Amino acid sequence: MYRSHTCGALNASHINTEVTLAGWVQKSRDKGFMIWVDLRDRYGITQLMFDASRTDQAVFEKAKSLGREFVIQVKGTVIERESKNPNIPTGDIEILVTELTILNASVTPPFTIEDNTDGGEDIRMKYRYLDIRRNPVKNNLLFRHKVAQEVRNYLSNQGFCEVETPYLIKSTPEGARDFVVPSRMNAGQFYALPQSPQTFKQLLMVGGMDKYFQIVKCFRDEDLRADRQPEFTQIDCEMAFVEQEDILDMFEGLTRHLLLEVHGLEVEKFPRITFDYAMKTYGNDKPDIRFGMKFGELNAVAQHKDFAVFNSAELVVGIAVPGAATYTRKEIDALIDWVKRPQVGASGMVYVKCEANGVYKSSVDKFYDQADLAQWAAATGAQEGDLILVLSGPANKTRAQLSALRMELGNRMGLRKPDEFAPLWVVDFPLLEWDEDSERFHAMHHPFTSPKPEDMHLLDTDPGKVRANAYDMVLNGNEIGGGSIRIHDKETQALMFKHLGFTEEEAKNQFGFLMDAFQYGAPPHGGLAFGLDRLVSILGGQETIRDFIAFPKNNSGRDVMIDAPSALDPAQLTELSIALNVLEK
Amino acid sequence: MYRSHTCGALNASHINTEVTLAGWVQKSRDKGFMIWVDLRDRYGITQLMFDASRTDQAVFEKAKSLGREFVIQVKGTVIERESKNPNIPTGDIEILVTELTILNASVTPPFTIEDNTDGGEDIRMKYRYLDIRRNPVKNNLLFRHKVAQEVRNYLSNQGFCEVETPYLIKSTPEGARDFVVPSRMNAGQFYALPQSPQTFKQLLMVGGMDKYFQIVKCFRDEDLRADRQPEFTQIDCEMAFVEQEDILDMFEGLTRHLLLEVHGLEVEKFPRITFDYAMKTYGNDKPDIRFGMKFGELNAVAQHKDFAVFNSAELVVGIAVPGAATYTRKEIDALIDWVKRPQVGASGMVYVKCEANGVYKSSVDKFYDQADLAQWAAATGAQEGDLILVLSGPANKTRAQLSALRMELGNRMGLRKPDEFAPLWVVDFPLLEWDEDSERFHAMHHPFTSPKPEDMHLLDTDPGKVRANAYDMVLNGNEIGGGSIRIHDKETQALMFKHLGFTEEEAKNQFGFLMDAFQYGAPPHGGLAFGLDRLVSILGGQETIRDFIAFPKNNSGRDVMIDAPSALDPAQLTELSIALNVLEK
Repeated sequence: MYRSHTCGALNASHINTEVTLAGWVQKSRDKGFMIWVDLRDRYGITQLMFDASRTDQAVFEKAKSLGREFVIQVKGTVIERESKNPNIPTGDIEILVTELTILNASVTPPFTIEDNTDGGEDIRMKYRYLDIRRNPVKNNLLFRHKVAQEVRNYLSNQGFCEVETPYLIKSTPEGARDFVVPSRMNAGQFYALPQSPQTFKQLLMVGGMDKYFQIVKCFRDEDLRADRQPEFTQIDCEMAFVEQEDILDMFEGLTRHLLLEVHGLEVEKFPRITFDYAMKTYGNDKPDIRFGMKFGELNAVAQHKDFAVFNSAELVVGIAVPGAATYTRKEIDALIDWVKRPQVGASGMVYVKCEANGVYKSSVDKFYDQADLAQWAAATGAQEGDLILVLSGPANKTRAQLSALRMELGNRMGLRKPDEFAPLWVVDFPLLEWDEDSERFHAMHHPFTSPKPEDMHLLDTDPGKVRANAYDMVLNGNEIGGGSIRIHDKETQALMFKHLGFTEEEAKNQFGFLMDAFQYGAPPHGGLAFGLDRLVSILGGQETIRDFIAFPKNNSGRDVMIDAPSALDPAQLTELSIALNVLEK
Repeated sequence: MYRSHTCGALNASHINTEVTLAGWVQKSRDKGFMIWVDLRDRYGITQLMFDASRTDQAVFEKAKSLGREFVIQVKGTVIERESKNPNIPTGDIEILVTELTILNASVTPPFTIEDNTDGGEDIRMKYRYLDIRRNPVKNNLLFRHKVAQEVRNYLSNQGFCEVETPYLIKSTPEGARDFVVPSRMNAGQFYALPQSPQTFKQLLMVGGMDKYFQIVKCFRDEDLRADRQPEFTQIDCEMAFVEQEDILDMFEGLTRHLLLEVHGLEVEKFPRITFDYAMKTYGNDKPDIRFGMKFGELNAVAQHKDFAVFNSAELVVGIAVPGAATYTRKEIDALIDWVKRPQVGASGMVYVKCEANGVYKSSVDKFYDQADLAQWAAATGAQEGDLILVLSGPANKTRAQLSALRMELGNRMGLRKPDEFAPLWVVDFPLLEWDEDSERFHAMHHPFTSPKPEDMHLLDTDPGKVRANAYDMVLNGNEIGGGSIRIHDKETQALMFKHLGFTEEEAKNQFGFLMDAFQYGAPPHGGLAFGLDRLVSILGGQETIRDFIAFPKNNSGRDVMIDAPSALDPAQLTELSIALNVLEK
């Protein structure tokens, strides 16, 4: 062992102890007759002291040569520090060094290894191994480990069995694009990497393993947006002989456990709202309920006058921005410009200032009187001092626009507090959603989701109205988990494939094994999956998942550190029975 | 929830309780006026009773229709059983059923869901979800989970951080063949699936994460032998600021913990033997030391007479088979035939019976006298009643042949007891091994393994003699883990690549990121990896890893249940910028 203690372990109780430490040179200060070095490892920083009058001269000279990020080993005595540093656990002591070994030198790092580094995203990714030395990244990885361990311990204690499902599986066109793997031994054939272990966990339920989980990598070959990775980690869970309520209880319990263990927070029973309520009240299905500004629908109180913009709109809807009646014209214009940006896409915005003594001043005063505006205030819950902002247009689009505005205001006004956690369930999702491109219904969750029995009769007549036994767990405006009760009989599954546009043959080719399995006594079952990357980042009070992944890929799906993907040796391609077919661009 | 209790939970203390159970029909016995059904779930079996005189007639009729593997839910009263079954925890009670719901019917399963099934390997794999209902497979999966949890808890308590390393990495020609993944976004380029997270864990050490582990899937596209899977699981570990001794201590501690937790066994400190000693004494580097029959080298006491076979041999070596002096001529001939099979490849075998009163009878009596044979007995440790078996020829081949014989005899004589565990360390592995095919040295472990400093001077003159700081953990004749102290400076790593036949450019292309990393203060580090599949199977007292994998692949790398790999849609290939290039056979 290269050390007797770590760099975070020593304090006043160790004074006069002989110790051996090893770590990296964080910085050194050479005062001529005295040299101080901050020695860093994963556990902390300990100050080393070389004193020309007490340290062996050769050691003193060697200490002069130390540069940033040199790896060294020192022996010495713990002594009391003259100027103590109350901000670190080792701040009362320093090491009077007697022996110094340079274990490895370092060239100058391309960015500073400090909490606030001078390195930009790109260079930090290229030298990720240096980035990981920085506290913010290192602590995120340690935090991730703690969360994963807590998940495993909680679920194991609840009788869940972690089962490893295969990574080399079968490609299915349904859903997102698969990453595929050519098979050398089965020429011309390909494995796919799993987008999720969905069918395997259902087969485990058929196999009687009635409480399953797995923390598992999944893969989707989608065009990457910021904060989406081609490989990502799920906490994948499934239970048999359960109803939706049992699943919500179990995984609400897990999340409460995590909040307690990692933040010491006891949270109330999670609110449950329906998808419809979420869309109407927050304009999206993953509302951040840490703050208000609930939507007020104004059709009934805004479509009775001569204001054509509203009268012709499918939906008129507003929010009350607390305390914003004082906004200047310029500030309001800026907000209007913000919602008119192409990313949001509103064509305009109406506002009402709720001033003192029940006086309303609006941008549509020539159409609406004070009594009208009072009704708007009632519908949006606006109080004196608030600013009502109103959008109108097609219902879905308008809700999305107002939701974007609500979130933007939440951010600007500091209402999305990173240390506050407001989980909830959104339930009763639609089973199907219409896809404009393919002009057919797609499964909103996936094709194995059970419709609500009471809605089954609508499948032929009004498929968009059929609700599913599907649910999402939402935390601070992010979907952190989602799942459903599954179909567990062959007939319903066949019916579902039919409604999703599968021919019988396609269904059999792709999912025949599952439908076969359903013939041999499949129990009722359901489950959910959490996105671990996002869960960890939100629990960590941040929203960027990349900061919680040890070696993330960039937006082109590249690992810039190892420079992957890369070209293959032609012999390798031949062996795999494939050839390149790169089209000129 | 579909049940108030599981099928393993009820006993005499529950008599007169109203319960709801759900599970599978294991079997039913219809006696006309009484029907008994064994209801099975993951937790056990509970007997249900339908009594024509007490059960509602409709329920009774429905009970008659139940077939094997039907999924049912019942309500009823726990009553005392007349003929108790002391072999199962629920054997004192049965359920007098009042309500019966068939949750899902089942067609007749293709094999019996019993501990001793009538289903062969192929059919069990095709219907693996039914196979998993059987206790032996189910219990293996639960056992695997327990082992993995114990590993995680032990290492986490020791300060290790589990870090997820990427699955989409870079292909390198060194080592086994990679599985590759075409990149759609980077046309003509490929990711590789990791054969191990080796370079990433070393970069984590460079990054200061000084105790890392990960239970992780790895991939090798090799021709499959029995019991080798294209995807397999490692417990991958690495530590910084450690010497070999620290690593052996740490992971010996882990294995002792596992033996204690899963078997209640306290084992002594693991013996440590060198690679050379293992080869000389057991003929292989993963000796099963649950039994003796250590090799005795006989060159000195067998090459002084006129027996040309021995005199011309590089090595004459024997073992003493305990108590086998009574073997008949026929039995011994059968053993000679066994070693002459092509799989073993000996050209013949000499034997010596150690009979009562120090009398030796051998197949070479005309060349050797009693005094000679007494020396052979001394060299092999043979006692009265033992049978000495002697092979001769080229040293390495002969050792391998005798090792095969020793293991075969260990099996036949019941010396390899599944409930006995004899772990040990084999250390001081050679750094390099000569490869006949490519006529060059290969890294015995991998190119990142550190040579022993004291052997470095042999690298140019006698590379085969250079020992590495490399070690294997061996349990019951299987390598369950292996690792090494790594090279941590750029110069030694460059030298190693040179000796392995890399050009500077190849080294830079493939491992430039690692050599770069070594410039920025890489600490001394080392680690090891356990093969989880094998570790679990050996701890489980079995040797077939497939029985401990939920969804294994067959010897052609196929998942016969989901029928993967499979052909892709041509559009998918185009999108990936590849084309098929299947050669006619």
